[in-house]
Amino acid sequence: METDEYFMQRALELAEKGRKTTGENPMVGAVIVKEGKIIGEGYHKKAGGSHAEIEALKEAGINAKGATIYVNLEPCCHYGKTPPCTEALIKAQIARVVAAIEDPNSKVAGKGFSQLQNAGIEVSVGVLKDKASKLNEVFIKNISEQIPFVTAKIAQSIDGKIALSSGKSKWITCDAARKRGHEIRSMYDGILVGIGTVLADDPILDCRLANNSASPVKIVLDSSAAIPIESRLLQGKDKVILATTAQADKGRLKKLEEIGAEIVTTSQDKVNLKELLKALYNKGIYSILVEGGAQVFTSFLIEGLLDKIIVFISPKIIGGDGKDYVGNLFLREMKDIYDFYIDHVEKAGDDVMLAMYPKK
Amino acid sequence: METDEYFMQRALELAEKGRKTTGENPMVGAVIVKEGKIIGEGYHKKAGGSHAEIEALKEAGINAKGATIYVNLEPCCHYGKTPPCTEALIKAQIARVVAAIEDPNSKVAGKGFSQLQNAGIEVSVGVLKDKASKLNEVFIKNISEQIPFVTAKIAQSIDGKIALSSGKSKWITCDAARKRGHEIRSMYDGILVGIGTVLADDPILDCRLANNSASPVKIVLDSSAAIPIESRLLQGKDKVILATTAQADKGRLKKLEEIGAEIVTTSQDKVNLKELLKALYNKGIYSILVEGGAQVFTSFLIEGLLDKIIVFISPKIIGGDGKDYVGNLFLREMKDIYDFYIDHVEKAGDDVMLAMYPKK
Repeated sequence: METDEYFMQRALELAEKGRKTTGENPMVGAVIVKEGKIIGEGYHKKAGGSHAEIEALKEAGINAKGATIYVNLEPCCHYGKTPPCTEALIKAQIARVVAAIEDPNSKVAGKGFSQLQNAGIEVSVGVLKDKASKLNEVFIKNISEQIPFVTAKIAQSIDGKIALSSGKSKWITCDAARKRGHEIRSMYDGILVGIGTVLADDPILDCRLANNSASPVKIVLDSSAAIPIESRLLQGKDKVILATTAQADKGRLKKLEEIGAEIVTTSQDKVNLKELLKALYNKGIYSILVEGGAQVFTSFLIEGLLDKIIVFISPKIIGGDGKDYVGNLFLREMKDIYDFYIDHVEKAGDDVMLAMYPKK
Repeated sequence: METDEYFMQRALELAEKGRKTTGENPMVGAVIVKEGKIIGEGYHKKAGGSHAEIEALKEAGINAKGATIYVNLEPCCHYGKTPPCTEALIKAQIARVVAAIEDPNSKVAGKGFSQLQNAGIEVSVGVLKDKASKLNEVFIKNISEQIPFVTAKIAQSIDGKIALSSGKSKWITCDAARKRGHEIRSMYDGILVGIGTVLADDPILDCRLANNSASPVKIVLDSSAAIPIESRLLQGKDKVILATTAQADKGRLKKLEEIGAEIVTTSQDKVNLKELLKALYNKGIYSILVEGGAQVFTSFLIEGLLDKIIVFISPKIIGGDGKDYVGNLFLREMKDIYDFYIDHVEKAGDDVMLAMYPKK
């Protein structure tokens, strides 16, 4: 079992290489092992490209016969852009398949394992399943609910404030934490803020990293299309999506479209977040980082739309008159509390970063 | 140097054994090493008992000649309840003394090192000095300022709240965090709360540990002596000190004294914290854990009387209408923020615990 974990860990590392390039596809890595030695490795690079299992089989060649393959997701059994991996594994006479998790895609969902077992291949499922689920949390969310995976990022003082009562907030967290924040931004397809944040801070929301890959789309909740034309977001080079409502002036929307903004209009006075998420998903935005402010965070929280929260905590005290990042929740009983679990804690310079997930 | 750290670490472990028994004295451990082997060890058990160096010399016997001694605090050079350690080290012909920190006691303060050097002994100072300073943080505070070392303990939600708007707070943190909280209580001479906390929660403030050593004194900030006679604190077996002012009714104070409470009266309408700390120090209370509520915490914070803050953070969200533990601080500029540094982070069950110290 420990050996299984060792090779599965390697498969997860390989899978990770596909981050940012697999698009709507999962990140998958595969390792073929015979007599304790790795004889083939591969990972899925991009939608339409070959699957991890096929890459690894290619490298192992005829030695794959009688070997074990480690893969972090159930091998596919359907014809998509490429032929099914199960067929290739059976043909290569693999003896054992060790997988971390089942593929939640209803076209697979255990059918891949059945096909392999029916062909006499030993199948073990569940090795490093928590790590594997976290790695593909975006894919799993997407395939299960057809909306983007939503993470909120907070930078707070220890006493839970995001700004002084005077409004100042530059900077509560340290350089290292903000750099880590930029790294996190780069892992999402979209960064979402409210119009209040745009009007107050005129942010760029960029990923100031040395190695600057594709910059996320900027999404602004702006029910009445109040965003200034001269705002840095609209003047920047990245795509901006404005989420508006019927309140917005048609002429203004036209003008905003002319300077390159995309408009999504939802059906209520206030932007309907669920409708918006559906629309963003249909535009190929599979993951969103919600960055503020308090009203936006609270809406996502109350509507149960947060899949993850990343909190940077700086050891500073701002005081009760500082700015909260959560609105009034009117909780009466402890059982009504919004409850999360901490997945991991890391130091970020002088600050601490917590990654939390809702308790189901 | 790495070897020095290895043996100093052992000296620190020995010193730690004296916690809760050394009283106003520092915790000190000593290790005598010859040709890479430990030939004597000792630690200071209690005021009036022999010093760590003497215990270690006793174990080493005549082999101490030419050996190195590791000790986490500068050896004393004055006649206190016992003769100076410097003399004993010189007499035993120790060749080298490795110390972590200088003794801040003005009777020593470097004079111990000078005496040793004048006798031809090699002296190295500074090995594991941060750990050594933290170990004796209470002693260092006491000897430098003649007031107790003050730590505040907070149990908060991630958004910085200590109770729902309805006042409910049982429990925000998990069992393991509360158990850790009880362990921390047992390390302090006194637990301090405001009268508001007593009236609201009627707490016992005990240390519910299997191995229950001496329970800390309970201190209540109660300017008008409003504590109910039937409160669990006054009905309990532990000593209770009431910090009052001239506002308190004399007859009531007499009655409280009759049922065993000790009264400390300070000079203003509101309890004067600095005066109180002096009085507590003079009563032999060398360390205090401040446990609530918000008003008490804020007063200690604003007056610069917090030496340390221990924060348990539970991954729960209570909302902006929850109860803050810091009052309004009216900060205008980021430079006015109360700034701390994180000394360490530990997991406490489902929660996280941070230990922070003020940035000087």
